[in-house]
Amino acid sequence: MRVLVVGASGTIGSEVVAALGDRHEVVSASRSHGDVRVDLTSRSSIDAMYEEIGDVDAVVCAAGEAAFGPLAELSDDDFELSLRSKLMGQVNLVRSGVGHVRDGGSFTLTTGILAAEPTGGCGAVSLVNAGLEGFVRAAALELPRGLRVNAVSPPWVAETLEAMGRSPAAGLRAAVVGRAYVACVEGARQGRIVDARDFA
Amino acid sequence: MRVLVVGASGTIGSEVVAALGDRHEVVSASRSHGDVRVDLTSRSSIDAMYEEIGDVDAVVCAAGEAAFGPLAELSDDDFELSLRSKLMGQVNLVRSGVGHVRDGGSFTLTTGILAAEPTGGCGAVSLVNAGLEGFVRAAALELPRGLRVNAVSPPWVAETLEAMGRSPAAGLRAAVVGRAYVACVEGARQGRIVDARDFA
Repeated sequence: MRVLVVGASGTIGSEVVAALGDRHEVVSASRSHGDVRVDLTSRSSIDAMYEEIGDVDAVVCAAGEAAFGPLAELSDDDFELSLRSKLMGQVNLVRSGVGHVRDGGSFTLTTGILAAEPTGGCGAVSLVNAGLEGFVRAAALELPRGLRVNAVSPPWVAETLEAMGRSPAAGLRAAVVGRAYVACVEGARQGRIVDARDFA
Repeated sequence: MRVLVVGASGTIGSEVVAALGDRHEVVSASRSHGDVRVDLTSRSSIDAMYEEIGDVDAVVCAAGEAAFGPLAELSDDDFELSLRSKLMGQVNLVRSGVGHVRDGGSFTLTTGILAAEPTGGCGAVSLVNAGLEGFVRAAALELPRGLRVNAVSPPWVAETLEAMGRSPAAGLRAAVVGRAYVACVEGARQGRIVDARDFA
């Protein structure tokens, strides 16, 4: 398969690339690295990326920003960025990608367990993750030509916790999270929210 | 209690007003009718509404637009309107309302069963409803002074189906849906998605 990985240089994305790379052709994309550049907040940038790379069999997205912070401190701009990037960025990867993914291909997006299991400070994050999950369930009913769409739901990633100076013990290793994406690309799931903890 | 009902002249809102009106003071708001006008897509309009009406004990929202249509035909503007109106309009009713709702008061918002049980044509609707539900679950963890937030999830409303020329048999009467809102206002629910079908 030829697989586009958006966010290929990130903590999760690099593990997805590593896991897919030995048996598939990976086209890497991100804001500032990889085979092609893309700004998820811009639909024209997404369209340009698809035009540049040609057809693929699968699209994986492990990118998109959402703003953490106490509800009382989240600004209009924080919500706006979260909607533009992690939510509509991924939605638009599907909307614009339908014409560029071959019959029977797939989209695998990224949500997170805070959609269903919130903690303090995730008012915007839970909103965008849950919204993305609603879109995935609905879009799966309408995609043409056997195309599939799923979203992987990671918990906190151990490497991210380490980078924040926190104990990685509460997190899941990015390599384990990566397995969930591979299962979505290579398997038959459709319209599913895939809990990455099931791959530990 | 003094209860602000946004969307008070709508199919559901008018039933909420009727059900609350015999024992509470209702302040009605909508785009073009009622005690005060509000444009949910504008945070400054929401702020102006709260300034105009003074403090309340509860806020109910039975308003907000989201675009139905086949995924391949939904435009960027359709998604934008849905995000601005039903999703962020209701989120901003909470964000701006925190300073205007008395201790122990509540927000009762409107989602819909398409968030969890999609059908064709609800790519944008499921997105905004599910996103709102994620926000409600998360915001409930952070609201100060005992404030509560919940969302009522109605199925198709019988009167709406009739207005569309379809059989009302598959829908729930608006008066029944209204009971779910009353239960959220008068009860102790917090961070819950309340299925209106449970009130039939």
